[in-house]
Amino acid sequence: MTLNHHENSKICSGIAFGHAKKSFANRSGTNGEPILDIDGAFANIVRIGNQNVGITSDGIGTKIEIAERAGIYNTLGFDLVAMVADDLAAMGIEPTNITNILDVDVMCPKTIDQLMSGLATASKLAGIAITGGEIAELGNRIGGFGNGMHFNWCSTAIGVAGEKIISGKDIVPGDTIITLAEDGFRSNGFTLARNALERCYGKNWHTEKFTETQSWSEVLLTPSKIYCPLVNSLKRENIEIHGASHITGGGVPANLGRILKPNNLGAELNNLFSPPRPMQAIARMTDVSDRDAYTHWNMGNGFLLVTPSTSIDAILGKAATLGYRAQVAGTVTHGPVNIRIGKTIYENPGK
Amino acid sequence: MTLNHHENSKICSGIAFGHAKKSFANRSGTNGEPILDIDGAFANIVRIGNQNVGITSDGIGTKIEIAERAGIYNTLGFDLVAMVADDLAAMGIEPTNITNILDVDVMCPKTIDQLMSGLATASKLAGIAITGGEIAELGNRIGGFGNGMHFNWCSTAIGVAGEKIISGKDIVPGDTIITLAEDGFRSNGFTLARNALERCYGKNWHTEKFTETQSWSEVLLTPSKIYCPLVNSLKRENIEIHGASHITGGGVPANLGRILKPNNLGAELNNLFSPPRPMQAIARMTDVSDRDAYTHWNMGNGFLLVTPSTSIDAILGKAATLGYRAQVAGTVTHGPVNIRIGKTIYENPGK
Repeated sequence: MTLNHHENSKICSGIAFGHAKKSFANRSGTNGEPILDIDGAFANIVRIGNQNVGITSDGIGTKIEIAERAGIYNTLGFDLVAMVADDLAAMGIEPTNITNILDVDVMCPKTIDQLMSGLATASKLAGIAITGGEIAELGNRIGGFGNGMHFNWCSTAIGVAGEKIISGKDIVPGDTIITLAEDGFRSNGFTLARNALERCYGKNWHTEKFTETQSWSEVLLTPSKIYCPLVNSLKRENIEIHGASHITGGGVPANLGRILKPNNLGAELNNLFSPPRPMQAIARMTDVSDRDAYTHWNMGNGFLLVTPSTSIDAILGKAATLGYRAQVAGTVTHGPVNIRIGKTIYENPGK
Repeated sequence: MTLNHHENSKICSGIAFGHAKKSFANRSGTNGEPILDIDGAFANIVRIGNQNVGITSDGIGTKIEIAERAGIYNTLGFDLVAMVADDLAAMGIEPTNITNILDVDVMCPKTIDQLMSGLATASKLAGIAITGGEIAELGNRIGGFGNGMHFNWCSTAIGVAGEKIISGKDIVPGDTIITLAEDGFRSNGFTLARNALERCYGKNWHTEKFTETQSWSEVLLTPSKIYCPLVNSLKRENIEIHGASHITGGGVPANLGRILKPNNLGAELNNLFSPPRPMQAIARMTDVSDRDAYTHWNMGNGFLLVTPSTSIDAILGKAATLGYRAQVAGTVTHGPVNIRIGKTIYENPGK
């Protein structure tokens, strides 16, 4: 992954956003009017009648190749739900519904059953209803690994935003940053991981053992944790949250940086969760520096909450009750928007 | 396309719907509760606060290959908007917002600019705001024709359902069926069309001339008409509509049949618009029977409105004002659910 590649990706997103932004006027002053500038936000919120409705779309990218290599298809639904439901949760929106589009080369009922079964289980955990779906058979427009059904999978979630949106604008220096643990890669950073594993083990790296009982593909397939039930619960109990960050592409620096930017604040993180063992192992076996790793992978931290100190006990308590590992990771500092993780400083991270 | 293929597709949709249906209980009695059984409906509607919000997802399938063959990328946005916005319109839902996911092999800024430019123009025509988007670079998981950027494109639309949903339950024998003209294929039936053209002209069929000024790929790329502005307008003026049908996969028989089924009614259609010349030409050059053509292609009729006779003049007048070709196509009859088009009877069509 080169700088040019990253720049090209930024240019393309910018082009898409430019055209989208013009369209906001199409609903000006009426139902569907966007109430946020979506550039850099996790989701958008539109007003329908007297309701603020959040909406976001995303897919699970090349994590699907890991499922194809492992021959396991009932965990990807967790990743699909996590990507969109937790993007809504990061803005304090309670996800209510998901629709999904599955593009396949040829339809395999057995694989589809496993995918949809996982989606149903994950949706139950997230407390959302699957209220739309489409399976499109696209032949050679879809490729992948091995001989099974190949596919790409994406989804849209909507939710109830309520009046109080978590935008990061309430964050002040001295606020506490709480981290929620993640054991896997979620749906990000697989290109880097796959390249490293292939260099180390060759083309069939997925069959190599990571532990005695788990292959590398199985461990990389670890389903995403879904954090929205905790955020929903904190919101329902009116526990004050100043900011929330879903750690996806760009890692902790980019995603935390995004919500610190509006108030020009920084952060010191001395107590993040350690990266899960597979991430550590991949970083060790190849030339991925610690700095690079933190900007590509979640490194064991899937979601951050920024809160006044008065909320800490309530949040840690609720997290424990609901079965999430959570701990205080650090503090918000005065600007500029630099994020220090251990001894490394990330200057003005994010897009 | 064989019966087995169609059966397999039905089985897979059924599996997906089975899992989705279970998830409805996750929102029972609260925000996001689905108020429709989505099996066979164009979209679903969920209640958020005191609002009924419609939601639907779809993509534009292999029409993208036509754009790749023609090297023209600024019309597909019309197809993408049409697929979802008109699915909402068919239930009397006013589309308000669209999100889109573009899966690409590698990002080409110029092609993405053309795609998004078309999406913006189509969204303006449909009166909707683009409030979400994602471009995912998926390498060899995406394939297509030629050397340009390959991609698959799908979207989700939401809209305001209001209290009065068009479900087809108000349809009675004697109701009038009005058809709205379509000049192209919309996003359906391209497999059949491409196979026919390849058999006739060989692999590079797309460069062959259809007329002196248009190649076959250009004519097949004709952008979808977008009907929701007309339906929105009719709803705003309280013009009575008993049923509406967006003519997508399965053609007139399947899509009209779907809304006739709840009341076990049939239809006689003696005055549909004629198929556009390219469809007629493709049907002539290969072994596509009239019967098959009507179950794969829209045959010149993109949207049907079922109305009491008292609404006819108002609908035809409003259509003319807004620039849609519309005419009375036929009449609703007593059951069983048979649809007669000219001399051909389609018995119990649809899924």
